[in-house]
Amino acid sequence: MLTVHGDIRSGNCLKVKWLLDVLRRDYQWIDIDVMTGATRTAAFLALNPFGQVPLLVLPDGRTLAQSNAILVHLAEGTHHIPAGAYERARMLEWLFWEQYSHEPYIAVARFQRAFAGKTAEDIEPRLMERGRVALDRMEQALSANAWLAGGQAATLADLALVAYTRVAHEGGFDLAPYPAIRDWISQTEAAFGIETPSEPADRTGAASSLQQ
Amino acid sequence: MLTVHGDIRSGNCLKVKWLLDVLRRDYQWIDIDVMTGATRTAAFLALNPFGQVPLLVLPDGRTLAQSNAILVHLAEGTHHIPAGAYERARMLEWLFWEQYSHEPYIAVARFQRAFAGKTAEDIEPRLMERGRVALDRMEQALSANAWLAGGQAATLADLALVAYTRVAHEGGFDLAPYPAIRDWISQTEAAFGIETPSEPADRTGAASSLQQ
Repeated sequence: MLTVHGDIRSGNCLKVKWLLDVLRRDYQWIDIDVMTGATRTAAFLALNPFGQVPLLVLPDGRTLAQSNAILVHLAEGTHHIPAGAYERARMLEWLFWEQYSHEPYIAVARFQRAFAGKTAEDIEPRLMERGRVALDRMEQALSANAWLAGGQAATLADLALVAYTRVAHEGGFDLAPYPAIRDWISQTEAAFGIETPSEPADRTGAASSLQQ
Repeated sequence: MLTVHGDIRSGNCLKVKWLLDVLRRDYQWIDIDVMTGATRTAAFLALNPFGQVPLLVLPDGRTLAQSNAILVHLAEGTHHIPAGAYERARMLEWLFWEQYSHEPYIAVARFQRAFAGKTAEDIEPRLMERGRVALDRMEQALSANAWLAGGQAATLADLALVAYTRVAHEGGFDLAPYPAIRDWISQTEAAFGIETPSEPADRTGAASSLQQ
């Protein structure tokens, strides 16, 4: 059986959980609390020298880190990866962009406000500015195509990007000016069977703390 | 014929050039000077809404951004991507790690010192600290395996990581404490036919300016 070490509050970890669930794979989930330094213990570093979650452990004990590498590995041979070489490359384009130009702003602002107890005034303005640039880019792409990789169906690019985009409001990003993104969030949640929050998220409002 | 828009001083662009050269592909290289805002012009943004180089343009006009997505696309079906599913996933693990945990420190410090005219004192200490963490991680991996993805041959992971690691000294990183990395740089350059600098780089010394 597969094992995932992860923190359910992390979008990078949730991505992996959602994919395993939609693929109906059996797996064991081991909770790792990233807030208490559980990824920096000697035992965890021996398992994953990168010191990060999520970590996938295969049935034979081999490990794999980096959320988007895990997604691609788990989805190989499924319809979540486009069959065409160019569409597959476009999917990877968005996966790499997510880690370089989206997660470091959208996810980090959300972490600081929803988990590290910071207020809007504490957040570095550059973080918010770059986050809005990322959202602008997504809005532009999603105004032209229903799905990020450009084809007729959701791919891992949508799954990976939705993880932190759907909670962007928790970092203080207002999604009101982004109608294409808001539609795409609902469509991506439906495509991957992702539960919408039981209390409808006020995605156009101010940040709320997950800890409340 | 393929076209690449790129700046030859950028490791992200060089990766693509090296791969095209080792694959003996015909391509046209269009120089884009990232220092003069050439990636932010309306004409370039129409071609690549991400506003970044490298950009690959296929013979039919379709485009692809993100250096590591370009590498994977160009190398599909070659021995530069491992045949085994797990080894392929390990390669992707390093490619994603490169963009999240290596490039933002090693490449950015080098850009600031070698291109933006900053001195060692101008560089944010966190940048240097995170860069050293990245080098520590590589040294650990390369002390256990000759190649990053863990197999018997160089992969795109080595190509992607060598681009900025071989010029890390230009950002003020001293590679003297990293013997496994230094050996791996030479081996990776040899594996991909990458020219070593005509003036041997003083990889253990202080930063030098590429502009001199």
